Amino acid sequence: MPNLEKEGFEMMKDMKIFEGSVTSAKGFMAASCAAGIKYKDRTDMAMIFSEAPCTAAGTFTKNIVKAAPVKWDQDVVYESPSASAVVINAGIANACTGAEGLKNCKMTASAAAKALNIEENAVLVASTGVIGMQLPIDRIEAGTKVMAGQLCGSEEAGLNAAKAIMTTDTIPKHIAVTVEIGGVPVTIGGMCKGSGMIHPNMCTMLCFITTDAAITKELLQQALSEDIEDTFNMVSVDGDTSTNDTVLLLANGLAKNPVIDQKDENYELFKAALHQVNTYLCRKIAGDGEGATALFEVKIVGAADKQQAVTLAKSVVTSSLTKAAIFGHDANWGRILCAMGYSGAEFDPEKVDLYFESAAGKIKIIEDGVATGYSEDEATKILSENEVTAIADIKMGDAAATAWGCDLTYDYVKINADYRS
Amino acid sequence: MPNLEKEGFEMMKDMKIFEGSVTSAKGFMAASCAAGIKYKDRTDMAMIFSEAPCTAAGTFTKNIVKAAPVKWDQDVVYESPSASAVVINAGIANACTGAEGLKNCKMTASAAAKALNIEENAVLVASTGVIGMQLPIDRIEAGTKVMAGQLCGSEEAGLNAAKAIMTTDTIPKHIAVTVEIGGVPVTIGGMCKGSGMIHPNMCTMLCFITTDAAITKELLQQALSEDIEDTFNMVSVDGDTSTNDTVLLLANGLAKNPVIDQKDENYELFKAALHQVNTYLCRKIAGDGEGATALFEVKIVGAADKQQAVTLAKSVVTSSLTKAAIFGHDANWGRILCAMGYSGAEFDPEKVDLYFESAAGKIKIIEDGVATGYSEDEATKILSENEVTAIADIKMGDAAATAWGCDLTYDYVKINADYRS
Repeated sequence: MPNLEKEGFEMMKDMKIFEGSVTSAKGFMAASCAAGIKYKDRTDMAMIFSEAPCTAAGTFTKNIVKAAPVKWDQDVVYESPSASAVVINAGIANACTGAEGLKNCKMTASAAAKALNIEENAVLVASTGVIGMQLPIDRIEAGTKVMAGQLCGSEEAGLNAAKAIMTTDTIPKHIAVTVEIGGVPVTIGGMCKGSGMIHPNMCTMLCFITTDAAITKELLQQALSEDIEDTFNMVSVDGDTSTNDTVLLLANGLAKNPVIDQKDENYELFKAALHQVNTYLCRKIAGDGEGATALFEVKIVGAADKQQAVTLAKSVVTSSLTKAAIFGHDANWGRILCAMGYSGAEFDPEKVDLYFESAAGKIKIIEDGVATGYSEDEATKILSENEVTAIADIKMGDAAATAWGCDLTYDYVKINADYRS
Repeated sequence: MPNLEKEGFEMMKDMKIFEGSVTSAKGFMAASCAAGIKYKDRTDMAMIFSEAPCTAAGTFTKNIVKAAPVKWDQDVVYESPSASAVVINAGIANACTGAEGLKNCKMTASAAAKALNIEENAVLVASTGVIGMQLPIDRIEAGTKVMAGQLCGSEEAGLNAAKAIMTTDTIPKHIAVTVEIGGVPVTIGGMCKGSGMIHPNMCTMLCFITTDAAITKELLQQALSEDIEDTFNMVSVDGDTSTNDTVLLLANGLAKNPVIDQKDENYELFKAALHQVNTYLCRKIAGDGEGATALFEVKIVGAADKQQAVTLAKSVVTSSLTKAAIFGHDANWGRILCAMGYSGAEFDPEKVDLYFESAAGKIKIIEDGVATGYSEDEATKILSENEVTAIADIKMGDAAATAWGCDLTYDYVKINADYRS
């Protein structure tokens, strides 16, 4: 097991953090299979199933070009009494596929419902991959049936599901947290995928979180909606907000904790645990951005208010010139100040202090808007780590925000110059 | 002389378009020199001078981090009775340089004023290059003095000035237009530089336009401000709005045309000629974007209003994923639809028709939001030209907009991973 603390994962007391996944919470199972959607010699479908019906929450892309599965899931999350299963495929996004695309969502849900003996409107679906192609629905249906017969609650089944949903991702992304709520251990586990077309505006790519917490639908949705503002909405790989962005959170109540039905201490505990899961997954997505060699973290501190900090942090983390400089281990602070300047947020450039920080140390680069006379060698050393942080203090107040992205590399261009072939 | 019409330059009757520059209009001279600012073995300073005092107009970056020369020029354009000279250097941007940076602008203007026997507040200055370094003011002053003694009205002097202001540009960018106004030939000539950090929000990088037209200051500024909305503000190489963006327009009246002092036919003629100059220079900037192999033009037609068309066109032209696909000659229309979808403009994705067009032909890729079953081979052939256009018809009205950018390539990353060394 890796040292999670070292990976930027803030440890909180009374919380157990482990390399779990969507099967870690009680009553959740997973399966995966090689359905031959687009890839050869690898799994490309996954299924999550809860033995008890779940309260469902979700956040979805704000792109007005919404993939068919997004539309389907919005109906399930907003209208269905409960959800029990998620069927996911990688390779084809089922976006820009018109009426046939929506029909394919329904057929997928129907196949799962039949195999699992649940209602069709209790099945969520998710797709990721190429836009504009229709799903090979026969293979999707066959894969769904196979997976329904192989569901398993093991850690391995969860890990395999995290692998099956990858596209250009280079590593599977999953985590779990256990926290005591009302004297009872409650687990939240999650997996996600995402590497390109990552610039969430509401939430990013595909993320599936399961918990055995007992919590009302209203508070489940609220906890998710609030937390993604500080997590998934602060990640950007390339500034492109996908058509398929989806975060689903399923709670089946099997932990038997006192139901969380008001914004009390228990709700805060649940939210803190959820925040740990989301933060971990976000950092994994950013660090595994297409072609990335480094996770690039941008912290704005001393802001007058949260929105100002968010605007500035996102502008820096999406700046192509800054991202290319990070790839080159070049302390090109002018580009950071420039990106702050065009963000739309008001601040005084002549009051800004800027630092670079990584495992190799911390260095003050500019003070009150001008260079400190820092050592370029030391700066380059700090910027040569695979996780680097830029911290800008704008000295206007106490608000702060953190955004995550990655460097811009030759491989990003290579991957995206001919993704479809 | 190249075929300007073939280069996307729309010919208008009664207008003569030629490979001129800032010296083409009557009474304007230029000079350049190798001042050793940052580069070796090349010229890196240029001067423009008018033998008669000029009415000056300008548009400047909206980045709140404004380089010192931008602040200096705003004072000259807004407060001085007239302007006679511009001193430009490449290599160092004089941005984020605090009080010393502003003092260096004043010292540059003072050196030019002394050498040219004009007022200090009649001298405009402009810098481009690395942010955060101070100018070597002794070399700037020496270069200024040298250039003042070498001013010349020849085409060659203008071309050499266009070369001297280049940074990562691969070609000098210059053009001139002559149009008859009130029975008198009036000339507008311009040069510009710009290759990276190009995402103008008000105007882009450095552009200098000279004209012998007689026109009031108010209308000169209005013509410029209006036209850049359709030209410089529609160019994006990398989404980064520079700290130094400046367009200066100097009119010395030596054509002796009836003074343009109202919005009549003569004003429209002047504006049409100015538009030709600006459009040509914008296309040159986009096509010569850092690392670019192709000019990427995005036309939105059938929009409900201009702002909607502008928002959509800019979103597509700045999408990293779309730009990488253009580099790969990949007809990845899903990314274009996706970028339209997250632009913030409202439209119906299921009504969109999309075409690709180049010298190799025109092809309809999607109709009413779904693929037409076009030939990938033909699409690739069209996308393999060095100027490609995407045209999206959103069928909501008659408004349209055009944006210019370029593909995203390995070389963009290479150039920007270590620009400073």
